[in-house]
This record gives sequence, structure tokens and C-alpha cells, in this order.
Amino acid sequence: MEGKRDHPLLRQGKMDLAWASQNMQIIDQVIKRYKSKNILEGYSIGVCLHITKETAVLVLGLRQLGANIFLCPANPLSTQEHMVSLLKDKNINVYRKSGKTIQAFFENMDRVLDNKPNIIVDDGGEFHKRALQKNYNILGGTEETTSGINRLKAWHKKKLIKYPIIAVNHSRTKNLFDNRYGTGQSSIEGILRATGILLAGKRVIVCGYGWVGKGIANSAKGLGAKVIVTEIDPVQALEAFMDGFEVKPINDTTPFGDIYITSTGQLKVIRKEHIENMKDGVILCNAGHFDVEIDIDYLNKGDNHPTTIRKNLKCFRINRKKIYLLAEGRVINLVGGEGNPPEIMALSFANQILSIVYISKNFKNLEPKVYKVPKKIEIEIGQLALKSFSIQIDNITKEQENYYSS
Amino acid sequence: MEGKRDHPLLRQGKMDLAWASQNMQIIDQVIKRYKSKNILEGYSIGVCLHITKETAVLVLGLRQLGANIFLCPANPLSTQEHMVSLLKDKNINVYRKSGKTIQAFFENMDRVLDNKPNIIVDDGGEFHKRALQKNYNILGGTEETTSGINRLKAWHKKKLIKYPIIAVNHSRTKNLFDNRYGTGQSSIEGILRATGILLAGKRVIVCGYGWVGKGIANSAKGLGAKVIVTEIDPVQALEAFMDGFEVKPINDTTPFGDIYITSTGQLKVIRKEHIENMKDGVILCNAGHFDVEIDIDYLNKGDNHPTTIRKNLKCFRINRKKIYLLAEGRVINLVGGEGNPPEIMALSFANQILSIVYISKNFKNLEPKVYKVPKKIEIEIGQLALKSFSIQIDNITKEQENYYSS
Amino acid sequence: MEGKRDHPLLRQGKMDLAWASQNMQIIDQVIKRYKSKNILEGYSIGVCLHITKETAVLVLGLRQLGANIFLCPANPLSTQEHMVSLLKDKNINVYRKSGKTIQAFFENMDRVLDNKPNIIVDDGGEFHKRALQKNYNILGGTEETTSGINRLKAWHKKKLIKYPIIAVNHSRTKNLFDNRYGTGQSSIEGILRATGILLAGKRVIVCGYGWVGKGIANSAKGLGAKVIVTEIDPVQALEAFMDGFEVKPINDTTPFGDIYITSTGQLKVIRKEHIENMKDGVILCNAGHFDVEIDIDYLNKGDNHPTTIRKNLKCFRINRKKIYLLAEGRVINLVGGEGNPPEIMALSFANQILSIVYISKNFKNLEPKVYKVPKKIEIEIGQLALKSFSIQIDNITKEQENYYSS
Amino acid sequence: MEGKRDHPLLRQGKMDLAWASQNMQIIDQVIKRYKSKNILEGYSIGVCLHITKETAVLVLGLRQLGANIFLCPANPLSTQEHMVSLLKDKNINVYRKSGKTIQAFFENMDRVLDNKPNIIVDDGGEFHKRALQKNYNILGGTEETTSGINRLKAWHKKKLIKYPIIAVNHSRTKNLFDNRYGTGQSSIEGILRATGILLAGKRVIVCGYGWVGKGIANSAKGLGAKVIVTEIDPVQALEAFMDGFEVKPINDTTPFGDIYITSTGQLKVIRKEHIENMKDGVILCNAGHFDVEIDIDYLNKGDNHPTTIRKNLKCFRINRKKIYLLAEGRVINLVGGEGNPPEIMALSFANQILSIVYISKNFKNLEPKVYKVPKKIEIEIGQLALKSFSIQIDNITKEQENYYSS
Repeated sequence: MEGKRDHPLLRQGKMDLAWASQNMQIIDQVIKRYKSKNILEGYSIGVCLHITKETAVLVLGLRQLGANIFLCPANPLSTQEHMVSLLKDKNINVYRKSGKTIQAFFENMDRVLDNKPNIIVDDGGEFHKRALQKNYNILGGTEETTSGINRLKAWHKKKLIKYPIIAVNHSRTKNLFDNRYGTGQSSIEGILRATGILLAGKRVIVCGYGWVGKGIANSAKGLGAKVIVTEIDPVQALEAFMDGFEVKPINDTTPFGDIYITSTGQLKVIRKEHIENMKDGVILCNAGHFDVEIDIDYLNKGDNHPTTIRKNLKCFRINRKKIYLLAEGRVINLVGGEGNPPEIMALSFANQILSIVYISKNFKNLEPKVYKVPKKIEIEIGQLALKSFSIQIDNITKEQENYYSS
Repeated sequence: MEGKRDHPLLRQGKMDLAWASQNMQIIDQVIKRYKSKNILEGYSIGVCLHITKETAVLVLGLRQLGANIFLCPANPLSTQEHMVSLLKDKNINVYRKSGKTIQAFFENMDRVLDNKPNIIVDDGGEFHKRALQKNYNILGGTEETTSGINRLKAWHKKKLIKYPIIAVNHSRTKNLFDNRYGTGQSSIEGILRATGILLAGKRVIVCGYGWVGKGIANSAKGLGAKVIVTEIDPVQALEAFMDGFEVKPINDTTPFGDIYITSTGQLKVIRKEHIENMKDGVILCNAGHFDVEIDIDYLNKGDNHPTTIRKNLKCFRINRKKIYLLAEGRVINLVGGEGNPPEIMALSFANQILSIVYISKNFKNLEPKVYKVPKKIEIEIGQLALKSFSIQIDNITKEQENYYSS
Repeated sequence: MEGKRDHPLLRQGKMDLAWASQNMQIIDQVIKRYKSKNILEGYSIGVCLHITKETAVLVLGLRQLGANIFLCPANPLSTQEHMVSLLKDKNINVYRKSGKTIQAFFENMDRVLDNKPNIIVDDGGEFHKRALQKNYNILGGTEETTSGINRLKAWHKKKLIKYPIIAVNHSRTKNLFDNRYGTGQSSIEGILRATGILLAGKRVIVCGYGWVGKGIANSAKGLGAKVIVTEIDPVQALEAFMDGFEVKPINDTTPFGDIYITSTGQLKVIRKEHIENMKDGVILCNAGHFDVEIDIDYLNKGDNHPTTIRKNLKCFRINRKKIYLLAEGRVINLVGGEGNPPEIMALSFANQILSIVYISKNFKNLEPKVYKVPKKIEIEIGQLALKSFSIQIDNITKEQENYYSS
Repeated sequence: MEGKRDHPLLRQGKMDLAWASQNMQIIDQVIKRYKSKNILEGYSIGVCLHITKETAVLVLGLRQLGANIFLCPANPLSTQEHMVSLLKDKNINVYRKSGKTIQAFFENMDRVLDNKPNIIVDDGGEFHKRALQKNYNILGGTEETTSGINRLKAWHKKKLIKYPIIAVNHSRTKNLFDNRYGTGQSSIEGILRATGILLAGKRVIVCGYGWVGKGIANSAKGLGAKVIVTEIDPVQALEAFMDGFEVKPINDTTPFGDIYITSTGQLKVIRKEHIENMKDGVILCNAGHFDVEIDIDYLNKGDNHPTTIRKNLKCFRINRKKIYLLAEGRVINLVGGEGNPPEIMALSFANQILSIVYISKNFKNLEPKVYKVPKKIEIEIGQLALKSFSIQIDNITKEQENYYSS
């Protein structure tokens, strides 16, 4: 590896890029397939994503395909300085006024848009919002998150969408994998880093049995925990029960629950009425996107001088009991760990690249609305992912094709 | 239990009914909820289902709700004589001319239709086909199977559907559970009954990673087998791989594969080119609906005097190797075992009852087409299933409802 | 396969022998290794084992090594007639007076001993007992069971042992595998055959967490059941708890236990005080050797006309509740299923053969007492087993050998 | 919690002690049972252990029972400064000359022995060695490690042992749990911290299937990895195979192995001949006690300027391939993680306390040799552990006791 005399920040950037690339070989496969054709030549892409090592892999890959890139952060707090340093060294246009104010945040987006990119890549919808207000020809875009897609759909009803946007988040090759495997493992990892406890012998209460809850429940079980699920949806409750987990109302678990993990997307899932009944020494944490699932106000009112035991582990003393809160109730896999592993981001970003290529080729036939990732792309990603794992599969025979279609 | 002096067939029917009821308590819950209202009074229902102990529970339940029942078999070969005896003893109108000819099969349906039932319950679409040709007022119907639903949809395109039909098979509370748990367990059970072998230490090749394949793969793994998955769909292959299974083309598994189980819905999945490379002593079986997944013609040509080792276990000697075929390549969980357990049928039939009740109340507002099971019914079934397991879950709070809708 | 015109009993014997051989390839490997040397030539072996298809494989293998065999049944009730027919057809000396009296049982042993076999193979100790009373030179013997070994040790204290006996049961290559994998799978199989129920969603209470209990608990969990363990030994209870199972006193499980399986070796583990508190519809069964673990007297007193629902499934009505008992409380994997699979018997019988060979070579240096299976034999069996699975492993290097010994 | 104005080191010590106590409630149970009797009053104990938060819990517990404590480090590198600070604040006599020389190491031991403790607690045997050379009356001792016990046994043969020593490591309530659960989880944790990768979809090669290997294999499988085991012992290889893992020689795994974890206790398990065949990007790490299992010399010769990618992750470039080494090949769960969780140390230290109490009561009847932990103590620890988890179990009945003894 070159760069022994580089600035430390740049050196770290190079190391991280190398490590991310190592673990994102699906992206390699995608680039290899289209690079010689310079398939994105002539397109300029405005990218608003978290500036991480994985995003660096994406952005450098897009440039390898011929695109011109303008990058700004999707969240000022998540920007990794060494990756900015690396990207600048690689001559990527990174716009990030250093202030962490909301104003600086928006200004960065506007400066990207000043370059009039053809294609808009966003994580959250805010960048699309500003792009839609501009008065120049945008060919299309992509959106990485569920909440961004929901906003776009609402705007579509109001006839505000002016270019086709592909909902990357809804691809099976993204959402079948990221929550179950990525968030499952990384949430458990975050808990272990914060606490150093042993999972074998513990009762872990998983609140919410959506994909994230399923992933966490399985990872915890895989390390020997006894998992109990709480739900408000009867069909998901039934699924958890048939999957081998006990299912109970939260308050029936308080006599024995050692660790509570929320993954519901809901408000105040764990609150006064539950915490009052919990065991001395109980551990609370949240794996959902927002820090609203545990009623932290109640904890803070009960003990306004909680003790910080170790990083991401706080002890509240309420009613003579110790209640441990991890990572301030913020999403444990990101705050207590490293978030989704690069292997998972690779699947997501492979969807990004192929969706961008798709727009570049088909924008003329697309309407200004939100599109699913085309099934053909999902299949191509499946193929490339298998290739990156050196896995081959069978092909359908002619006879089978006929049988299937009859 | 009464009936010590009954005819042996009737006695066995009574025993089986009791045992099925014991394991289908969701049906009990449904009946209890609506019985006092006599909610199906005045409706007559034409039912064309496999005449089994579980169907007896359904049919007697429908009558408890006030309905008048006319029953004929969905398949002449699957009829259990002792359940006919039981149903007749309970004064259910069973039409089943004793011949096993296709003519007798259709005649039974016609005799049911002669009674002009209001509501049509079918398993396969044939009964709907004949009902649609009749010239009297049918309020609506239900369909139990995927293949039936596909036929109905094709007829809908040709404008042949004259009454609303609810696609019971597509309910999450049916298809989330029956293949994964029911078929998974019962297929493995069928293999063990036919062979008496030990799964620990065996390499089991599961061809096809749809819901049935997933269920079988997990059950086999749960009993200690090493499972390798084959697929033709790259996304399902990727899912299998991330679920912890090796994924290979069939021919790469032949040097070590001990047992092959097909669950693809496809034709000749295992054929000459594979079997020629398999180990001496390999075991082949099929868990798919039709007996087309293994190329049995090839086996029969290779050895036209296969040896019957024990029930459902045949040995073909081809090219100096022994190839074992289970249950003639027919669906192993039904032929080698007892098919889906009553607990699974209970979920399916709870969908039937609530869909029938739904039609009885809403037929005036329904169009002549195929409907999904209404989400409200799925939730009600989830609730009743949980109740039958004595499981309680949490309720959404007012504050959460507001948060969710915002 | 030859024998199309054979007597049906003989034909079935041939089929069963072929199928057992197919699944006992470790025995094949053992025979192959020593056959050319005719290593047991000149030895005559008196064998007292259950006459099953697996024993036939053992006995025919011993003869292939040059031994002269005299066989009698270890239990008159377990003799499979078609295997007697097969063995006689193969000119094995089988002594089994047809009466099932205890007298006939002993007479068969005596007739074997009349032939003055050099080596004595027993399953239970009774045959050794009679051999020890004879007045001729026996070189040595083996014992298959724990209870037999315990009896031999007691006799050793009384100085009654006159020849060296190898305790086959205590070999790691037998007892590491038979209970955990063999009995685990076959007990669950017996339950499924007797009931036809679905394990997913059931609470299974496993009483006793010895090797059999461990095997059953894991198999039940592997098929989706929720397993709760009961114990009287605190260390085993702790092990179950750390293995991921809930641990409770029996009476704390009665409000929710669906199925109880005893595997303790103890008396009246499930008794009046527990059964009175169980749910309506509970299922009881036993996986322990003797039918004493469930208090069947209590059941019979409570309902002296239990109903037979289906084979091996009886319903007792006590205090207005239905209590289901499987296989009369006798060992479920044997009575409800087929007992240990041939793959497991193969490991046990490989120990038998190699122990017999060992005696034939070393009897001069052995004292009249009970010996463990020599470690060298265990390693050889491990090697042969791996070979039968086509598995290779690494060898220790010279450097490692030095490191290890230092 | 008190101490807001304490020295930062002391404050951290207090926090860590509190957190360790929270997770070592078995120790609490032990202390509670014997505290009122002041059971160790009058005894002075020389303790040579790693000075960690868990050891602090042990040592403070022993003092609560009345003992006088003199403490020195079992390894100068493992001493946690903040725990020294805490222990001094609690007036425990800690001897640790600050130098990290071997001389300082021994001097600390000697200073402890100058206080003439009655009972000697050691971790490795070095402290016992020096104690045995002293000329004063020692009542007895304990030894925490396998290697220490082996040394003691060698000395016993040379008649050098002068007081009874209890081999704590050999207690079932220690070794059934620490490797399987503790090292299993913490090794995987160390790998995740060092790499941030996703385990689902990876092939993990576990070299060695002893207790540590079993624990790692199960934890990796529990998080979705495909695990392949390598062994040199055929019986352990067979066990791995029957447990559901593939078993292969190391060199047969190199085409697909993503991560190699050694846990053999052997030298150069992974060496040139293997590494040359491995995939580009392979990850190597060691979970065994010493850093000899991977041939690090070979790596260093191949690339004498490896790149440090991130903490505990180094990249060697050899033959145009990237070989990643974790934690310099040192034991990954300690170097890359936090070592054994406190729950596991609690079981070990409960054995320590009860063994010390045992010596204090029985030294007059004990000979100068190495003793197993008495079975009574194992049972008591099982009981106390269950109590600390609020778990109750059944008691044996009089009738069962009679049955058992007959």
C-alpha cells in the first residue's frame, strides 16, 4: 500500500477504503461488468449520502463508470473526516462547509445542485426536495431510505415529482438482507461492546418482530440467549410464536427480563408502567431508527444524575433499583457499534449503481414518479453477489421453461 | 367418549374427529365467537374438499354456525372412509359415488350443485368451474389452493367469473405457516418413516428455496443434517446462502449428496445427467405437489425391476449403483407421512370460515372477481390463534396511534 | 438382488439386511481392513444380542473375519423373525427355542454355551453370568450395556469374574453418539408417529438433562418447539439453562406444558401431584429405558377405560380433563418408532468387532476384570467412521508432536 | 454511587467494580451464605491472580468472610491500574512493584509470602513454586489454570508438594461453562471488533474442536456463518461431523475459507503450506492461549512491512495476495475483546471461595497433593448459580432415593 508519508487522516482514509473494498466485492463485480463501456460517461451525479468508507467505494465506482460526481453529506454528524480527506485526494468534488448548523447542511446541497447534476442520489428526501425546486432538467434519481420514499410518494400525490425516482430501499436484494443480517448482528455487537456481558443464560426481550426484530431475535438466540418477543400486531406475534419464541405483553416479562431491545418504529414502547416493574439491574436499549422507543424522559426525571459506568452504559437509580440504559437510547448498532457491515452496504449500493445506469438508459421512457427497482436489476444483483462469493447455480432448461409457462 | 358399540369405521371416525378437534382449537375459538348469533343461518354451502378428519372439523363447525352443508370430495383418492362414515352419522350430506372414475368424481360435484348452495368452497377450481356453468344465483365462494386461484384469475380475464371468490390460500395466516412449519416438519417425517435413517451426519440437498424448501432446509438442519441448497433463481440462492446454507449447482453436490429433496414446482429437476454422477446409495425424494420433479422415467428405464425394500422405499440398480426412491417420487409428506398437521389445517380453515362469514355479510357489495382475504380477517385469525395458545400481547396506546398516523 | 422366489420372511430378511448394510458402512470398513488376514480364524464366539437387522450385519461380519458364530436372543420379545430366517439361510447357528418363557430364554443361552465358544458377547450380563458358571476356558468377552457392566463390576468385587471383559458401552465412540443423536431423533420421531402433531408452537417439557435429555431437547428445538427442562441435579440444571433452555420445577410448567418427555432413569418423575395440575389435552411420554418414569398406576386408577385414539396414543379422562399417554409409557423411540438408527448401531458394533479382535490378540496379557475399550480402538473407529463418510483430516506434524510432548 | 470527586482512576475502578458485581451475583450468593459466620476469620490468604475487576470482586468477597488478603499480579501486563487504585482505596494489601521486569514480578510474590499467608491462591503455578520453597506452615491452596495443575502434578511426582491444593480448573462448574460460552462468545466478539465484518455468508474454519473450538463453532454458526472444522483427532473430528459441521483437512478449505480461527493448543497449525493456498483477503486469528498456532514468522518474512488497517487488523501482502492477521496472532478474545465475561469468572471464583473455605475446615484431614474440587462444592455452586438466576428445580423424593440406591 502506498502512502506511508501521507497525512495521518489521508492514510487512515486509504486504509479504510481498502478494507471496505475488500468487503464490498459485489461493487467490484458491477464495475467490472460496465467499466469498459464507460457506461455513465457524460452523466453528472449529485450524491447526498452519509460520507463513510462504503460511500467512498460507491462514489469512486460511479466515477470509474465515467460519471462526474458532486457529493454532500446526508447528515453532518455522520461525516467521517478521513473519508472526506481521501475523496478530496481522489479529486472527488465534496461539498461540506464545516459548520454543523442546519444552514451549512442545506448550503452544501445547494452547492452540489449549482453544478446541475443530471441524476440525483439521496438518503432521506431532503436533497430531492431542493432538487425539485430547481429549474433545470434532471433526468432521474434514486432514494435510499423508507422515510425518503414515503415523503416522495406524498409529494407525488401533490404532483410535485418532476423526474423518475427509483426506490432503492424497496429492492428485495436490499431489504431481505440489511435488517435481518446486518442490523441483527450489529445490534447485538453494539450491546456486547457497551456491556461486556455474556448472552448465554440471559433473557432478552425483543420488542417488535419486524425484520429488525427478527434479525436481533435470531442473533441473540444464536449466541445462547433466551428470547421473548413482544408485539402489538397479532399476525407478527403468531409468526414469532411459531418461530420458537415465547410471546408476551411487556409487563408479563418484567419479573425475569434481563435485556430489553426495542425495534418497533413506535413511540414510548418501554415506559414508566413497565420500568417500574423491571428487575434491579435491567438493561434497556433501542435498535430502532429514532430514540423515542424508550421513555428517556421518565428515566431522566427519576434520576437526573445518572452514572456513566463505561462508554454507552449509563446507570439510573430509580426507586432503589438500577436501570441501565445503552447509548442514550439511540440506535445501538450505530452508536454502540459500527452500523451495518460493508457487505450489507455493498448490496444496497449495487442497487444504487444499477438503478443509476437504468435511469441513464431509460429516462426517456420513464414518467415522473416513484418506481420500484426493476426485477431485472434484482436478478442481476443476485447474480453478481453470487459471483462475488464464487457461487454457481443451475440454469433453467428449455423443457422447464415450457412447463413453467404452460 | 361414547360409541363403544359403534361400527369400527364409525368408531375410528369419532376418535379421529376428537383428536383433530383437540389440535384445531383455533376453529373452536372461531365457532365460539359466532355460534350464539347463528351467523350462517339460512346459507347453504357446497363444499368440495379432501374428506379428512380436519375437513370434518370444518364442516361440523360451519353447521354449528347455522349453515346447511353439501359435501363432495376434492380428490376421490384422498377420501378417508371412516370420516365419511362419521359425517353421515352426524347427518352431513356427503355425496360420493363409490367409483373412483373421473365420471363419478364430477357427478358428485353436480349432485352437490343440484342442491343449489349459495356459497361454493373449492380446492382446485374444478368445482367452481362447474358452479360457474350453472344458471342460479350463487352469492360467493372461496378457493383453498394456489393452482385453483390461478385458474380463477385466468377465467376472470375471460369474464367467466360470476360471483366474488376469496383466495384463502393467499392469506398471510395461511401461507406464512403451512409450508414453512407444516410441510417442513411433515416432509422430514415422511423421509424418516420411509427410511429409518439418522439425519445427523447426512448431507441433504434441498432443490428449491421457496417456502417449502425453506421449511425443509430448516427442519433437516434442526435434526443435525448438513443442508446444501440448489436454485435457479439468483435472489433465492443468495437468501439461502445468507441463511447459512451452502448453495451449489446440483451436479456439484453429487460427489457427497446423501439425500435429495425436490421442492421446486418444476419438471425434471433431478434427471439423468445428475443421477449418473450420484453416489452409490443415494436417496431421492420429492416434496413438491406433482410427481414430475424427479425423472422417474429415467429410473424405470434404467431398472425395470426395482426392489421394494420397505414401504415407500424402492431401490433401482443402475450402472452398478443403488439409487433409492421414496414414495415413487410422489409428495413425501402426504404419501410417506400424514400430510400437514391439524394445527396447520386449523389456520387454513379458520380463514375459510371467516371468509364464508364475510361473503354472507358483504356479498351485495362485492364484484364477481377474486378477492384477497381482508386484512381484518387476518388480524382476527391472528388474535384467535393467540387466544387458542393462551397468549396475550400488548395493545397500541392512544399516543402511539397518533405517532403512527403522523 | 437375488431371491425373488424366496419365502416372504426370507425375502424380507434379505431386504432388511441390504438396507442395514447400506447404513452401516463403518462395519464394512472394519471388515475390509481385517478380512484378508482372516483375523478371527479359529475363534468361536457366543453372541447374545437382540436379533435385528443390525445384529445380522455384525454377526455376518464376524464370520467374514473367520469366526465361528453361535447366536441366541438377548430378549425373546425383540427377536425379528425374518432376521432369524435370513441368518439361518446364511448358515449361522441361531438358538432360539420358540417359547417366550424365561426358561426357553435361558435354555437358548445354555445351548450356545454347549458349543464352548472362546469369546462371549452379551447385552445385559445374563449370558456372562451363565458363562462364568461353566467350567471351560473362555478367553474373554464384551458387554454392550451399562446395566450389564454394572452387574459385572459387582461380580468382580465378589471375585466372580474369570475372563477379561471389555465394556463396549463405555467407549466414547459409542456413548458420545447414540443418546445424543440416535435417541434424540428417534424419540421425537416416535412422538410424531404416535400423534401426527406439529412441534412448532408447542411447549415441550424434557424431564432430565442427561445425554438422552440433551438429545431430545435439541431435536425438539430443531423442529421449532419451545423446550423447558426439569432436573433434580443443580449442575445439569445449570448446563440446560446456559444451553438456552428455561429450567423449572415440573409443577411450574403445568400451566403451559403441551408435551412431557421423561428421560431420567428415575421412578415416578411425573405423578399425581403434577398430572392434576396439567392442561386439558396434555401429552405424556417416556424416553427412558423402563416404563416407571410416568406414574401409570395413577392414570389407570383415574380412568380404567382409557380410549385408544390411534396406535400408541391413549386418552385418559381424569377430573374432566383429557390426559394423553403415548406407547403405554414405554420407551417411545423403540415402541413408537424403530429405535436407534442403523448408523448408530454401526458405531456400537464396530466397537464390538474391534474389541473382539483385541481380545483374540491380547487375552494372554489381560486379567479377569472389566476393561475400558482401549483408546487405540476408539481412534481406529474414529478413523474408520470418517473413512466411511469419505472424510479426511489433518495429521500431526513432527514439530507438533515434539511441542505436545514437551 | 458515591465518589464523584474521586481521582479519575479510582472513580473508574469504582464503576467497574459495581458493574462486575452486578454480573457476578453468584459470588454475592456465596458471600451471603457464609458472611454472618465470618467463616474465614483468622485466615490470611496470599492471592496471585490477574488484577481485574472480577478479581476485585473475589478479593473483597474473601475479606467480607473474615480473611486477611495479600495480593500480587499473576501477570504484570494484565494488571488494570484502576483496579489497583480501587483495591488500595479499600485497604487491600496489593504488592506490585511498578516495573514490568520478571524480577519485579517475582519480588511481588515474595513480598506477599513475607506476610506468611495460610492459604495460597495461584494462577499458573509460579506462586505455588515459591511458596513451596518457604519454610513455614501453609494449610493449603488452590490453582486456577490447567497448566498450573499440570506443573503441580509433576512436582507431586517429585514429592515437592507440601500442602493440599485444590484444582479449581477441573471443576465441572468451571470448565463446562467458561470455554463453551465465555470463550466462544468473546472470541467472535473480538473478531467483530477487529474487522467490522458480517458473519452471515462467511465460511469460518475452526481449527481444533476441543471445548474452545466447540464454543467458537457454535457462536459463529449462531450468527449465520458456515462453519468447517479441522482436526487431527479422529474422534473429535467425528463429533464435529455429527454435530452438523463439515470436517476437512486445512488445505481442502483454502479455496473457500474466509476466516480461520485456531483453537488447538498446538504449534504452527496454520503455516506456509496452507497460507500459500488461501484466498486473497483471508483473515487469520487465534483463540488459543499462546500465539504459536499461526506461523507468524512466515508472515513476517513474506512481508516485513505489513499495513495496520485498523486496531488489531494487519494486512500482509505475500505473493500478490492480502493476508489479514488479527491481534498479532495473540488470543483474540483477550487482545481483541474483553476476555471472559464476568458471569463466567463468577463461576470460576465461586469455586475459588468454596475451595478456600473447604481447606480452612478440612486441612487437617487432607494430604499434600492435588485434589479435585469436591462434588459437594460443585453441587453447592450449581445451587447458588441457579439461585442467582432465580431458578428453582425439583427435589428427589424419598421413593426415588430408594429406587436409585437399589
